[in-house]
Amino acid sequence: MGDIATGITLAELSQRFGLELRGDPSLQIHGVATLASAGSGQLAFLANPRYRSQLSDTSAAAVVLRAEDADAASMPVLVARDPYATFAKISALFETREAHPPGIHASAVIATDAVVDPSAHIGAFVSVGARSRIDAGAVIGPGCVIGEDCIVGAGCELVARVTLVTRVRLGSNVRIHPGAVLGAAGFGLAMDAGHWLNIPQLGGVVVGDDCEIGANTTIDRGALDDTVLEEDVRLDNQIQIGHNVRIGAHTALAGCVAVAGSTRIGRDCLIGGAAGLVGHIELCDKVTVTAMTLVTHSIREPGEYSSGTPMMENRQWRRSAARFRQLDALARKVQGQDKENT
Amino acid sequence: MGDIATGITLAELSQRFGLELRGDPSLQIHGVATLASAGSGQLAFLANPRYRSQLSDTSAAAVVLRAEDADAASMPVLVARDPYATFAKISALFETREAHPPGIHASAVIATDAVVDPSAHIGAFVSVGARSRIDAGAVIGPGCVIGEDCIVGAGCELVARVTLVTRVRLGSNVRIHPGAVLGAAGFGLAMDAGHWLNIPQLGGVVVGDDCEIGANTTIDRGALDDTVLEEDVRLDNQIQIGHNVRIGAHTALAGCVAVAGSTRIGRDCLIGGAAGLVGHIELCDKVTVTAMTLVTHSIREPGEYSSGTPMMENRQWRRSAARFRQLDALARKVQGQDKENT
Amino acid sequence: MGDIATGITLAELSQRFGLELRGDPSLQIHGVATLASAGSGQLAFLANPRYRSQLSDTSAAAVVLRAEDADAASMPVLVARDPYATFAKISALFETREAHPPGIHASAVIATDAVVDPSAHIGAFVSVGARSRIDAGAVIGPGCVIGEDCIVGAGCELVARVTLVTRVRLGSNVRIHPGAVLGAAGFGLAMDAGHWLNIPQLGGVVVGDDCEIGANTTIDRGALDDTVLEEDVRLDNQIQIGHNVRIGAHTALAGCVAVAGSTRIGRDCLIGGAAGLVGHIELCDKVTVTAMTLVTHSIREPGEYSSGTPMMENRQWRRSAARFRQLDALARKVQGQDKENT
Repeated sequence: MGDIATGITLAELSQRFGLELRGDPSLQIHGVATLASAGSGQLAFLANPRYRSQLSDTSAAAVVLRAEDADAASMPVLVARDPYATFAKISALFETREAHPPGIHASAVIATDAVVDPSAHIGAFVSVGARSRIDAGAVIGPGCVIGEDCIVGAGCELVARVTLVTRVRLGSNVRIHPGAVLGAAGFGLAMDAGHWLNIPQLGGVVVGDDCEIGANTTIDRGALDDTVLEEDVRLDNQIQIGHNVRIGAHTALAGCVAVAGSTRIGRDCLIGGAAGLVGHIELCDKVTVTAMTLVTHSIREPGEYSSGTPMMENRQWRRSAARFRQLDALARKVQGQDKENT
Repeated sequence: MGDIATGITLAELSQRFGLELRGDPSLQIHGVATLASAGSGQLAFLANPRYRSQLSDTSAAAVVLRAEDADAASMPVLVARDPYATFAKISALFETREAHPPGIHASAVIATDAVVDPSAHIGAFVSVGARSRIDAGAVIGPGCVIGEDCIVGAGCELVARVTLVTRVRLGSNVRIHPGAVLGAAGFGLAMDAGHWLNIPQLGGVVVGDDCEIGANTTIDRGALDDTVLEEDVRLDNQIQIGHNVRIGAHTALAGCVAVAGSTRIGRDCLIGGAAGLVGHIELCDKVTVTAMTLVTHSIREPGEYSSGTPMMENRQWRRSAARFRQLDALARKVQGQDKENT
Repeated sequence: MGDIATGITLAELSQRFGLELRGDPSLQIHGVATLASAGSGQLAFLANPRYRSQLSDTSAAAVVLRAEDADAASMPVLVARDPYATFAKISALFETREAHPPGIHASAVIATDAVVDPSAHIGAFVSVGARSRIDAGAVIGPGCVIGEDCIVGAGCELVARVTLVTRVRLGSNVRIHPGAVLGAAGFGLAMDAGHWLNIPQLGGVVVGDDCEIGANTTIDRGALDDTVLEEDVRLDNQIQIGHNVRIGAHTALAGCVAVAGSTRIGRDCLIGGAAGLVGHIELCDKVTVTAMTLVTHSIREPGEYSSGTPMMENRQWRRSAARFRQLDALARKVQGQDKENT
């Protein structure tokens, strides 16, 4: 990745990614951009039909698109079955990434019985606690705190200021963004003689290979068993995962989702932004939940689920909202009328 | 706590916690677990009736449960009036906690006029600002920032990467999880000639004894008076508390709750996850608010309060949502029919 | 600001801020407070009519208020057209601010090709990455991480533990509160052969002059173009701004708002707490969105918009919620009755 310093021809892109090329094979591509902002020498893409009208106005040198959109293009095109995924792969060629040389920064504080692979990078102001292990090629950015009994697998990247509190085990190639906190004590309370009593949180957090965890997201450790993310789970920013939650492989959660304790989410689910899941329920595989929905009970059938009301102009909304209060009385009245009429 | 290295007999547990024992008093317990995952030598518990069916399948050596569930158990049991609270106390015996020796880490930066008790623990990369005070036995974990004019009471634990911005006074035995920010300037703005003007935030934050504050939770300092949490208030992760909010003793807020400025919450309240409270309102004592409810006005009677709509399959939901838009017209039509019929 | 050590007379305040004074011009003011808590020598203010009744009980030495409230006051008053903005300016005189002497703390780690203005303040445990620039008078508080290719404009304040990941350019006088993360990789994913593929996030974040960004707020960097905040945008705490969002000048977002990727918000908008905006939509100028509203489509007319249902006592709410499920059937029945009747 990021290995294209001077440019690449359309012919090379076509060959490398198995794409049909329509246009000049020797055309040099020096960068990637959106249809709206692309300039000369830049490659753009068309995946979302919402932006199809931009095809006629773009200054892009070439465009990645579907076969059915190719005729509408006047510039060279690369035809892809999935232009979005294809563009992702091409644009990775132009990504510049921070260099992370192996070694431990002089300011870092590493417990004597922690084990850091010589190929790992440990940044400034990092602390690593007792009995923790940092595997080959892992990158621990500045300001991270790794507590006791943690494992950071091979090729993981903790970008900066990530906290693994205790008993957090990451698989390989996990990427965690700044401000995320994994392994904090879950919110377990029992009322005892008028005062809250903490339930000790003896479990940990297990994160599968290839997971990604967004900025300022929190994942609490389990009370007895572990909190678990299976492989390739994708969490956006500001998400809250309660203790003993389990999330299935390839499931993605958008920003600000809250999942309460002991809830299980299946594989290949998509949870929309700011949705909430109450505790102790189960979602089967392939469930989609739309944004800001509150999931109050288990879901046993794949499909799409929603709650809430549509957005309206406020004055009109107030009238509907007032009627919502009276909805049961209204329904009873209609049932009564129905009886009268029959 | 955490003082059981080799195990404890059922007889000792029975005596220590005042529990009726049914079964072999000499049985050794070496750990705690859930009914589903407990193995030999482990103690489990049954509190939530949802898990009662697991009693017949468990491999637990013994179980803590209510008298009415005891007959269904084939293994030794400890009978408790409140199995959940009892289990919390027993499981604390098996908790391993990080050692926090007294003293200040070599890397920490302490203002010359700050006062740190010799029994307090100050971790790596901690900074403590002018005129701040860290009391006996307090633990300040790695990466914490304590600003000016703060007090951290005796026995407090700031786990790691906690920020107290300024004028934050913690009582004793307060526990704060990583990423929490207390005492940031509240969101006070006045529009002045087309440009926002900041309202200076001259107050502080006062946190009572035994409070707990979750990971990445934020509590802003007051504009003139202080923002106040009374004793034993429990805040989960990702909560936002606006300036000049006041929360009564023993009240608990679940994750992702947002409380706008100057709102007052009574004692012994329970606020469900991702609920929102608008500003300048008052909730009396013993109010329960369900998850994702928006509290738009003061509540003067104890009880349970809710807003929102139930989760539905998306296609069906779309039909209800469309009708919500027309709800006022629908109600008027029914009223009109009612008149016609009478 | 903060330059009033010993007090100021009402005459001076009247002259300095162009306010009509009714009462003793020589009266000394030593501080500011709310009507409810003000003591002798303190100035209070009355702006919100909700607090008008406190005017008769206050012990404030003097009060800033509107002309129409002046007659109800028995103490000296300063008459202001906008008491709230006026009070903000006066109370700034009494604000104590932490001193931030120019220079770089001994513990800070600065890349050799980063440029730090000699008048800037760099606190303890700060790291500044390659090719980044810190301009005149900027304050970088303890524990901040500035990545590569960032610009912190003149007079900016990063209070503490702020992260600028990469390609973040701040205008002048931007204030960012602890825990905020700007420039993390946006949540761009394409499904490719059953496994998520990351879309490289090649853009940056551009923040205009005078913006404010709250504690633990996150602003992702753009995928190709930048994520942009125009001048004087105000973000409260715990807000999530997705990649390629654009927010117009003077717009303010309350706490916990979530804005999904590529959405554009106009100028002079007010977004209420915990509201959500889906991706790829546009809000025109002067739009107000009430708390916890989900904005699911573009808004082309200025005005106030809402969604949701009113808060109710739970038992009553359950009845309305159950009827919401049946709303389409109910409406059809009413339409049928209507036909029968006509």
